Amino acid sequence: MTKIPYKTYLSENELPKAWYNVRADMKEQHAPMLHPGTLQPVSVADLEPVFCTELAKQELDETNRYIEIPEEIRNFYKMYRPSPLVRAYCLEEALGTPAHIYYKFEGNNTSGSHKLNSAIAQAYYAKEQGLKSLTTETGAGQWGTALSMACGYFGLDLRVYMVKVSAQQKPYRKAVMETYGATVIPSPSDTTEAGRKILAEFPDTNGSLGCAISEAVEAAVATDKCRYVLGSVLNQVLLHQSIIGLESKAAMEKLEEYPDVIIGCAGGGSNLGGLIAPFMGDKLTGKANPYFIAVEPASCPSLTRGVYGYDFCDTGKVTPLAKMYTLGSGFMPSSNHAGGLRYHGMSPIVSKLYHDGYLDEARAVEQTKVFEAATQFAKVEGILPAPESAHAIRVAIDEALACKETGEEKTILFGLTGTGYFDMAAYMAFHEGSMADYIPTDAELQKGFAGMPKID
Amino acid sequence: MTKIPYKTYLSENELPKAWYNVRADMKEQHAPMLHPGTLQPVSVADLEPVFCTELAKQELDETNRYIEIPEEIRNFYKMYRPSPLVRAYCLEEALGTPAHIYYKFEGNNTSGSHKLNSAIAQAYYAKEQGLKSLTTETGAGQWGTALSMACGYFGLDLRVYMVKVSAQQKPYRKAVMETYGATVIPSPSDTTEAGRKILAEFPDTNGSLGCAISEAVEAAVATDKCRYVLGSVLNQVLLHQSIIGLESKAAMEKLEEYPDVIIGCAGGGSNLGGLIAPFMGDKLTGKANPYFIAVEPASCPSLTRGVYGYDFCDTGKVTPLAKMYTLGSGFMPSSNHAGGLRYHGMSPIVSKLYHDGYLDEARAVEQTKVFEAATQFAKVEGILPAPESAHAIRVAIDEALACKETGEEKTILFGLTGTGYFDMAAYMAFHEGSMADYIPTDAELQKGFAGMPKID
Repeated sequence: MTKIPYKTYLSENELPKAWYNVRADMKEQHAPMLHPGTLQPVSVADLEPVFCTELAKQELDETNRYIEIPEEIRNFYKMYRPSPLVRAYCLEEALGTPAHIYYKFEGNNTSGSHKLNSAIAQAYYAKEQGLKSLTTETGAGQWGTALSMACGYFGLDLRVYMVKVSAQQKPYRKAVMETYGATVIPSPSDTTEAGRKILAEFPDTNGSLGCAISEAVEAAVATDKCRYVLGSVLNQVLLHQSIIGLESKAAMEKLEEYPDVIIGCAGGGSNLGGLIAPFMGDKLTGKANPYFIAVEPASCPSLTRGVYGYDFCDTGKVTPLAKMYTLGSGFMPSSNHAGGLRYHGMSPIVSKLYHDGYLDEARAVEQTKVFEAATQFAKVEGILPAPESAHAIRVAIDEALACKETGEEKTILFGLTGTGYFDMAAYMAFHEGSMADYIPTDAELQKGFAGMPKID
Repeated sequence: MTKIPYKTYLSENELPKAWYNVRADMKEQHAPMLHPGTLQPVSVADLEPVFCTELAKQELDETNRYIEIPEEIRNFYKMYRPSPLVRAYCLEEALGTPAHIYYKFEGNNTSGSHKLNSAIAQAYYAKEQGLKSLTTETGAGQWGTALSMACGYFGLDLRVYMVKVSAQQKPYRKAVMETYGATVIPSPSDTTEAGRKILAEFPDTNGSLGCAISEAVEAAVATDKCRYVLGSVLNQVLLHQSIIGLESKAAMEKLEEYPDVIIGCAGGGSNLGGLIAPFMGDKLTGKANPYFIAVEPASCPSLTRGVYGYDFCDTGKVTPLAKMYTLGSGFMPSSNHAGGLRYHGMSPIVSKLYHDGYLDEARAVEQTKVFEAATQFAKVEGILPAPESAHAIRVAIDEALACKETGEEKTILFGLTGTGYFDMAAYMAFHEGSMADYIPTDAELQKGFAGMPKID
């Protein structure tokens, strides 16, 4: 009998009723976000011109362990959640490993990735506040797609600043967002001062997430009944994404399993932070001791080669400053094929947990190795992974192969954040052998660090 | 409270244990398939050189009402089935209709369409018979993608003859199949005699499904331990696809609903035949009287403008002859954007049911109207439909709007066969206003009819 990937679904009744706020269990909080003008810790009032009020509150909430998920968001979640936890029997067999490999598959909604978990929440709070429109940025296009769907659902207008190189590489991503009713603007653009400034300085720039953020924030502030929303990095996003980890943990409990190793790809940290949250809670409260691995691209190595310090979240330096692992907000990552992982910084929560040793390890991987893993996985497990997700697959396979060497029956859990249907140009490049690996030199990194603000 | 599309999921235990063979309940069988050489009805022995033995038996089975689904296929089905039956509350609200609109969503597996239901069955029987490889053709690429996944899963080699215009329009579809391990050959090609002959006569041809079938059949017969498989038209395929209808019926029973109108898009008839099968059984046995509508593109109108007679299933005239509604196997459909509906003929079962008045109506729709419906649907229901599926959406919306006029609370069920992630070029053409409608002239149709064999 051929083995099949075995899915464990929770019932609709087992859908979590509250998000988990890992900050409530952290021994020490990350350093506060600072106002870019005063360099003082920001308050809800400081954030309100940019963010929805409820989301600004969530951003600064260090104490509430559980935050109830509003009924309308839960109803929407029920369209595609609980998402499946899959035992990768076919992959285990192909590798000949004694390890048990599980993945939480977040690509089974029509936006194709985990981003919808936070998009629908953010659109909901905007609607509740009586707003008419939102602005955001997108890299690979997963966040933009998810938010377009969410805004379509709630009848909100949406402007998406899309990193220029992504808009060029992925015209179909743009078309999907437009089909859902969004306006997509390649960034940098001449629609904002931030964009015009960057274009004047670097007319041939590919754009970056940091730059697109500057434009989206500027556009939101300049528009009536409009706010800015972000798909990663922020505490509120990690809060919403905790549903990934909560469901994973509940499903594993049903199987009487507990992960020894938990692996997530990390760009801004939304998936990784959400996946590990409740397991990290166990670690912080001494209930268990799983080993956490963050996987990032060697071409944009904020955790493995960045510095831990205060930096802007955007290139135009209009956002608050966060203390995080960063390559410097001026760092322009190469146009590798995992657009969702091309961000100069890292979630302050993830950064703090890594700095304090609770997040055990960060590993940088090269993209040809990532696509090798993606292709191997697709053939045996039948899911075509997004390049971002394939970073986690790469390390899960490596860990499982290590178990084969040692004979250890480790239980490995990784996050399969999305599908790669819009990344076929990258798959083609891989098949044709034309995919290049890129690792920034120390000198290139130093240039990025040099532009950072000097704040202790 | 904003309404949400409401999904009814059957439990895994409610997954059907047998396919339903509607032929067992038909008052009269369709005329037999004829051997292309002898013009005599084909036997299992005649079909065996081309088809797997078990599938050849299914093809000719007129008597067994239920055919057990082998355990390994059921296990595979459990990865993505039962598929959701969705109440389209948001669409109903947007239309202001009193109708209840339901759709059976078959796009929630990683191949993106209903084609996987038959692909996994056909690959399973091939594996059981000890075969090493399969050949097939694909138009839009949905069947090729599904079969690539299925062959990858069972370790079978696969050659896919892909209609040339589709291969050009959809390089990414090709890349997906290759990622799953298949070899993709644009058709017509110089790898077969059939292909070379067509290329010599029409060097600039876009290709057609009929032509790709000729090549795939020839290649299968010429290869050791290889057989040919087809993703539509055949009785065996409709049998496997009956799982769509069986699940739909069971889910509607749970909701104490029964459809007044059932709508499916129809190319070769695999989705339509499968969706309506058990409801048609009710009609044939006098238990209920739902109204069935087949929807086809105005550019390839086999049911609405074709003739009912014996014809070849392929352009090269190497396949058996089937009695069906057809535009003639030499008909070259225009390169419209619903590649899955560009076939000259129609399933013999569907044809017979239509001819005898059990399938109540066929409706031809133009593609700009189809994309209008697709875009409207995507915005409110959050699913980006395949162009093929959007044909059914178009008519479902029209029927629901008619209910608004009359005040009737009809229950409408339609098949949402797949997602449109690989059809964004078509969506872009629609957004930009550059999409054209094409309706063949009577003279063009007469040319197709003239090439048909003269058999009563």
